[in-house]
Amino acid sequence: MVVGIDKAVSAADSVVSSAKKTPTAIPSDSVINLSRGDPTMYQPYWRRMGDKCTVVIPGHDLMSYFSDPGNLCWFLMPELDDAIRRLHRVVGNAVVDDDRYIIVGTGSTQLFQAVLFALSTPQNPDTEPLSVVAAAPFYSVLIVFMEGGSEMGGKGCCRVYYNVFALMEPSYPEETEFLRSGLYKWAGDAYSFDKDGAYVEVVTSPNNPDGTIREAVANREGGKLIHDLAYYWPQYTPITGKADYDIMLFTFSKATGHAGSRIGWAIVKDKQVAAKMVKYIELSSIGVSKEAQLRAAKILEVIAKDCASSGPDKEENFFEYGHRLMSDRWEKLREVVKRNGVFSLPKYPRYFCNFKGKDTDSSPAFAWLKAKDGLNCDNLLREFKIVTRGGPNFGVESDYTRISMLSVDEEFNLFLERLAAIKGTRNGHYLL
Amino acid sequence: MVVGIDKAVSAADSVVSSAKKTPTAIPSDSVINLSRGDPTMYQPYWRRMGDKCTVVIPGHDLMSYFSDPGNLCWFLMPELDDAIRRLHRVVGNAVVDDDRYIIVGTGSTQLFQAVLFALSTPQNPDTEPLSVVAAAPFYSVLIVFMEGGSEMGGKGCCRVYYNVFALMEPSYPEETEFLRSGLYKWAGDAYSFDKDGAYVEVVTSPNNPDGTIREAVANREGGKLIHDLAYYWPQYTPITGKADYDIMLFTFSKATGHAGSRIGWAIVKDKQVAAKMVKYIELSSIGVSKEAQLRAAKILEVIAKDCASSGPDKEENFFEYGHRLMSDRWEKLREVVKRNGVFSLPKYPRYFCNFKGKDTDSSPAFAWLKAKDGLNCDNLLREFKIVTRGGPNFGVESDYTRISMLSVDEEFNLFLERLAAIKGTRNGHYLL
Repeated sequence: MVVGIDKAVSAADSVVSSAKKTPTAIPSDSVINLSRGDPTMYQPYWRRMGDKCTVVIPGHDLMSYFSDPGNLCWFLMPELDDAIRRLHRVVGNAVVDDDRYIIVGTGSTQLFQAVLFALSTPQNPDTEPLSVVAAAPFYSVLIVFMEGGSEMGGKGCCRVYYNVFALMEPSYPEETEFLRSGLYKWAGDAYSFDKDGAYVEVVTSPNNPDGTIREAVANREGGKLIHDLAYYWPQYTPITGKADYDIMLFTFSKATGHAGSRIGWAIVKDKQVAAKMVKYIELSSIGVSKEAQLRAAKILEVIAKDCASSGPDKEENFFEYGHRLMSDRWEKLREVVKRNGVFSLPKYPRYFCNFKGKDTDSSPAFAWLKAKDGLNCDNLLREFKIVTRGGPNFGVESDYTRISMLSVDEEFNLFLERLAAIKGTRNGHYLL
Repeated sequence: MVVGIDKAVSAADSVVSSAKKTPTAIPSDSVINLSRGDPTMYQPYWRRMGDKCTVVIPGHDLMSYFSDPGNLCWFLMPELDDAIRRLHRVVGNAVVDDDRYIIVGTGSTQLFQAVLFALSTPQNPDTEPLSVVAAAPFYSVLIVFMEGGSEMGGKGCCRVYYNVFALMEPSYPEETEFLRSGLYKWAGDAYSFDKDGAYVEVVTSPNNPDGTIREAVANREGGKLIHDLAYYWPQYTPITGKADYDIMLFTFSKATGHAGSRIGWAIVKDKQVAAKMVKYIELSSIGVSKEAQLRAAKILEVIAKDCASSGPDKEENFFEYGHRLMSDRWEKLREVVKRNGVFSLPKYPRYFCNFKGKDTDSSPAFAWLKAKDGLNCDNLLREFKIVTRGGPNFGVESDYTRISMLSVDEEFNLFLERLAAIKGTRNGHYLL
């Protein structure tokens, strides 16, 4: 069978929702949306845990604005502070000494903006906005609000017109630019940044989309760093040491799969930066839902306890489960990619993982797939009803595309099946 | 006993926390902080409700980013949408026809910013920022970040230096200005606004701080309105009709006392405005905590059901309870104020309340207290270890101060006791 490459499948066309409460059979001709990182794959683990992570909240509980009035972050619940520190100590992925400040946010999205605010104030009215950079590739869709539809490509930054259904993954450039703040502005690729003066570099490690381990690259005087460590957890990458940076961001959604809770946290060295982040969160939402905090505290505490327990009949802990699943998926994906010869995947170095106590491969949350022969990888997969996020969204060529590895089993397996069915090309058409 | 008026009591001095889980005895010499509107007074009602409003959330539930993928507000849980509409129908305080969009936010604070974003985009880079105004008096503290301490007064806008403990109530000017957005800017008192072109007027009704019922006052061409109806509930004011404005904001914290949940909602007529608000919430926090939404849905649903039920053995519903408490507090406060002759309170017209089915007095969430003889009311009360929010924070003279009426019973009673002890003045000193 030969299928024309230009016959695009609409993303809106019977997209499989990940919001379903219970797994349902996916019709074999459905469009599979793997463009987003909704981490629903961990749900079976949490289901298996039964009541162990259940929270019960009576109507009269958690009513006040305040969680810990004596603490700099007065809206952070002490039990969440404890659970976060305990988990990082058990996993060994970040320094959480008592002199570090934990700031909770409505997802790490809110915290990213809180950091920009903290690093760019105080500011004299005649000061240039603080430059914000990141090393390519990074997700870089910017939404501009104008009447009408259609799409324009731009180097390193794809501008799309307003469409409420296409969104859902704010990019660093977009989060930096959308309010046209006079405090900070997006300044592009850190590799080519050559301005004097203060700037902020966002270092995402492991990186989204390509899963690589990263360090700052601008390294100029006046630079400050934000480390987004959303994926620095044992299921995605070997834990090679405790991260010890000035400002580190983590998020509940990528750590455990609880995206609906909107809980993120920052670990911050400097008190003034921490205090200004708190101020930002006061001004933007007067704190963070206590229900979500209570639940995150419970779940993180259970994981930490399970990880710390030993003995012969100890059950598989969350990270062991997560890593087993991710390794298995990666192994299957590499097998399919190798077999059909149409694509390639990045190779990651093997490192000793302190948490697992052995050499381990990376199994990133996204697969950064490249089509051979310079073909448009995203378009090609859409032919087979697989929706991904193409390279131009990350400032690179269209032969790359990003695929979420975190969907539910059934979707992932259907994806592998369809990918395996792609045999090769003839005159710009793919063979099934 | 004679006490010097200039001997200020520090607000940080053993402030009584409202965050305590169970009522504890308040030492009789404690400072009572009534400067904030932490609505902890409703807690006994919710305690009395037992398990009726309890939510139970298993570890595997509410995991996806998505709540309702087919809905414009894809992160709004359908049960919360239903509960909000049902409650407004039962109370009769807002039009919630099916063609109105409900947008959930992390408190109405986030929604206010979402509306500013929605009304100011799309914007050409050379367009003037959209002017945002409100009719005085309104809370107008602006925090500027500079090193050091001290305080400066400014007409209509009191600027204070950075102090993490003094904050917690974002003002409209501050929310509008803190990111120095190029999209919108604060333009002051709506009464004196005389610029041509597009602008936004925020109408808070009943008003904070003075409890008055308000209408838009600028009424110029190109004006758009945001109606903040946080206090338009039967416990605070007679419900005289269904509010039917373009953009209406409500918040769970003032409606039921659940401030810790950070749930607010907007009722919006225009689809494009609603869609841009959704976009703002995506970019600032990728949605709103589902745990908080689930709990708000449960509690609002129980209230609506209780309000709709009739019959001889029907229990007191939440608004009947709230109104009884608030009326009682106001009666006692007016009695004390009348007796000691040092202060005065606003008088509110009596209206027929559609919800209660009878003529009713207003019992606002804040008392807008005025000291006679032009004395500084806030300072005077601080002498008696009562911390309030003085007139200059609202752009008016210091003989006014705002007092929260929503503290726990014990605090409120202690406040009345202390207020009753103030007998009169002699040479600028108050007599006990």
